[in-house]
Amino acid sequence: MVMVNCDMGEGFGIWRLGDDEAIMPHIDIANVACGFHGSDFNHMRATVRLARRHGVAVGAHPSLPDLQGFGRREMKIGREELANCLIYQIGALKGFLDAEGMTLNHIKPHGSLYGMAARQRDTAEAICDAADIFRVPVLGMRGTLHETVYPERGHAMVAEFYADLDYADDGSLIITREHPPVDPEAGTARCLRALREGVVRTVGGRDVPVGSESICIHSDTPGAGDLARTLRRALRQDGGEAPA
Amino acid sequence: MVMVNCDMGEGFGIWRLGDDEAIMPHIDIANVACGFHGSDFNHMRATVRLARRHGVAVGAHPSLPDLQGFGRREMKIGREELANCLIYQIGALKGFLDAEGMTLNHIKPHGSLYGMAARQRDTAEAICDAADIFRVPVLGMRGTLHETVYPERGHAMVAEFYADLDYADDGSLIITREHPPVDPEAGTARCLRALREGVVRTVGGRDVPVGSESICIHSDTPGAGDLARTLRRALRQDGGEAPA
Amino acid sequence: MVMVNCDMGEGFGIWRLGDDEAIMPHIDIANVACGFHGSDFNHMRATVRLARRHGVAVGAHPSLPDLQGFGRREMKIGREELANCLIYQIGALKGFLDAEGMTLNHIKPHGSLYGMAARQRDTAEAICDAADIFRVPVLGMRGTLHETVYPERGHAMVAEFYADLDYADDGSLIITREHPPVDPEAGTARCLRALREGVVRTVGGRDVPVGSESICIHSDTPGAGDLARTLRRALRQDGGEAPA
Amino acid sequence: MVMVNCDMGEGFGIWRLGDDEAIMPHIDIANVACGFHGSDFNHMRATVRLARRHGVAVGAHPSLPDLQGFGRREMKIGREELANCLIYQIGALKGFLDAEGMTLNHIKPHGSLYGMAARQRDTAEAICDAADIFRVPVLGMRGTLHETVYPERGHAMVAEFYADLDYADDGSLIITREHPPVDPEAGTARCLRALREGVVRTVGGRDVPVGSESICIHSDTPGAGDLARTLRRALRQDGGEAPA
Repeated sequence: MVMVNCDMGEGFGIWRLGDDEAIMPHIDIANVACGFHGSDFNHMRATVRLARRHGVAVGAHPSLPDLQGFGRREMKIGREELANCLIYQIGALKGFLDAEGMTLNHIKPHGSLYGMAARQRDTAEAICDAADIFRVPVLGMRGTLHETVYPERGHAMVAEFYADLDYADDGSLIITREHPPVDPEAGTARCLRALREGVVRTVGGRDVPVGSESICIHSDTPGAGDLARTLRRALRQDGGEAPA
Repeated sequence: MVMVNCDMGEGFGIWRLGDDEAIMPHIDIANVACGFHGSDFNHMRATVRLARRHGVAVGAHPSLPDLQGFGRREMKIGREELANCLIYQIGALKGFLDAEGMTLNHIKPHGSLYGMAARQRDTAEAICDAADIFRVPVLGMRGTLHETVYPERGHAMVAEFYADLDYADDGSLIITREHPPVDPEAGTARCLRALREGVVRTVGGRDVPVGSESICIHSDTPGAGDLARTLRRALRQDGGEAPA
Repeated sequence: MVMVNCDMGEGFGIWRLGDDEAIMPHIDIANVACGFHGSDFNHMRATVRLARRHGVAVGAHPSLPDLQGFGRREMKIGREELANCLIYQIGALKGFLDAEGMTLNHIKPHGSLYGMAARQRDTAEAICDAADIFRVPVLGMRGTLHETVYPERGHAMVAEFYADLDYADDGSLIITREHPPVDPEAGTARCLRALREGVVRTVGGRDVPVGSESICIHSDTPGAGDLARTLRRALRQDGGEAPA
Repeated sequence: MVMVNCDMGEGFGIWRLGDDEAIMPHIDIANVACGFHGSDFNHMRATVRLARRHGVAVGAHPSLPDLQGFGRREMKIGREELANCLIYQIGALKGFLDAEGMTLNHIKPHGSLYGMAARQRDTAEAICDAADIFRVPVLGMRGTLHETVYPERGHAMVAEFYADLDYADDGSLIITREHPPVDPEAGTARCLRALREGVVRTVGGRDVPVGSESICIHSDTPGAGDLARTLRRALRQDGGEAPA
């Protein structure tokens, strides 16, 4: 069955982001922030525990080193330096997984890092340099360098569909600072179409091909919990027909 | 044979501290900073690699979260929060050990954390909470809570002798911002006496009992490399008589 | 008339804390975070602008250097180092006041720094060292070192009453991680009694003397905006009788 | 007379960079780091004091927010956000100037920020947005956007010659992670030629026009103190002929 993934644990210190408690029961895999765009050692511990309680698999959601900018500022960073940056974060998360008796499920680069790896080979290679060590699949986007570089380097690439972001006519995501609310029924219908037909209707009214091996919902999308619940119910009914 | 340990990898970003290249060939185990009092992902990678090249075992040297103060400011931090803080750092270091095909050798709390654990049970317990996960010995100081709490919790405690710090009449260390230079011959003689007789001459002229299962040299002590080389040569000659 | 002050601008990066937009119209002076427990350069600019728009005077709300702990961890920090830490923060805020054509109104130490200055002379002296440079009054608490050290050093001390915190029988504040909601009418009545009689009823049922030169509301108290509006309306009606 | 400027105060916490004590006596103006690529509140206080003791004028040396990367990573940052980032840093430095009874002399953007402003109008405009508030000249590089944007916005641009960096054939600087040593006599001769003829010999053997209103030496260039002393002695002898 197609998995629902969600970025979790993106608070920091006293600050919170997204309603993790409401969403965690309705997702399959959690992309857990590692302290470089959000989260800290306390949020990581709590998030990993929450995931374990709900039987949710945990992957690392590492970022460029940019807490104040939430990892959304592109920056020039060399391949080796970036690989080190990722190993640090993923290793730290593994400490908490060890503490809770869990294993690392996958890696999903966050924010600008995700976008840079879609377009710049060096960035994608650095992600592979880190994945070489932890030997888990990498979540990514169809039609980008994710799809070519990760497998070339021997890493499974899991193509995501974004349940709560609009797509542009060229198939790229339209990223906004604040995610607009998504109607659970309409959002679910859009996901099911992606799964069945492999396409999405863009903001320009065209149908473009999309990934459909995992469905991503953002925890700070208003009503993310409702969307996840509705979507997962539909996916279970739909389970027989959907791709692995 | 008694091991020589040294704090390594305590630079940060562009900044360096201590001459790791000169010291690493002459020590047995390296306490590697984890980014919270010194070091960052690049320094950690380089330090772990340097240790591997010289056959030096690597332990974690985690700190209170205080980069600007080099982990030398005591702070009030709860046991659970502190345990999380340590798990994060040790996990991050393990990422680099995984990358280099090495295993975690031990934990040595840094700076004020070391001192707080010597006097406050809650701090020592938090260190054990982290050690529970990684299952390695903890370096510590004789005559303090290190000696009682770590073993109570099932963790081997390795008692250190400090080759380059003066001892007060009560057996405590005299910690200074900058470490004075130590004559290699005199420093070595002091270490051998600690190993053979289990005592050191204090600044007040008394002999007090000291730990002697591992000998610590600070990388920012002027001439640390010379001291380490001289000391280790003597330890090898002395090997037959020394404990452990 | 007695002023209502409120801690403002305590978000960081993508994260928000308190509903500044709802509260700012109903307060007289804002204690603006300076980036060391909360806030950053963007939040500071926005907060100072919001204050200007509502005719609210701005003071600095500097903290111990502890963003992840929201300035709520006591730490050992020397007087000179602490003074430097405060000068940095207050200077940075003044940059934004200059940008908006405003002047610095006061200094109010944040969190653990406030508490430490209440009990430790060195901390209170460090605050005065910084106040020497900026020459503005310092907000503080009656019955503590604030009351003695600040005036000794020539700085006006403005004694606060806390509208949304409980008082213990010894007159100290009961600080909680999360502030409970306060009924606007009951909260206002409690403030008016403090102003008229100079006392508050403690959790133990006693009346203890309290400061009453400024009234503090926390922006993260649920319903802080309602409380501020109700309180200020009452203060205006009550204006003739209240002390300065 | 032409001034010699130098980046000063670029240590952080326990770490040091460059020999400020040796260089400060031989320069005219100090570009003081503001905590975002180097420095912190203690280093800033000490550096401003050292400058005052030697009669050296102090300017702000603000950076992109990137302590771990020493401000040498280009990043995407919007104009308003960048302006806020600069105001924060310059304001903080002014706090220390206030403390020492000094005034702000100039602004010199650091590292990648300097380079970005040379090529990207938005970056140069953000620097002007900050300069609008503090009303001091901006140090910059001839033949770049510095030369056009700053004056357009009403800010004096002081064109620098770099005493210790090589120039490429297109007149741009060749920036290296570590600055090579510079022979004091040869370096001085090169500076005097820049002042008299307005050109420098490039690594390719061509003569290209350069700025010559201020001469920059980097504090981490080996022998920076010797170069500064030799250069300033020559400048004083040469004083009559050099441009203002």
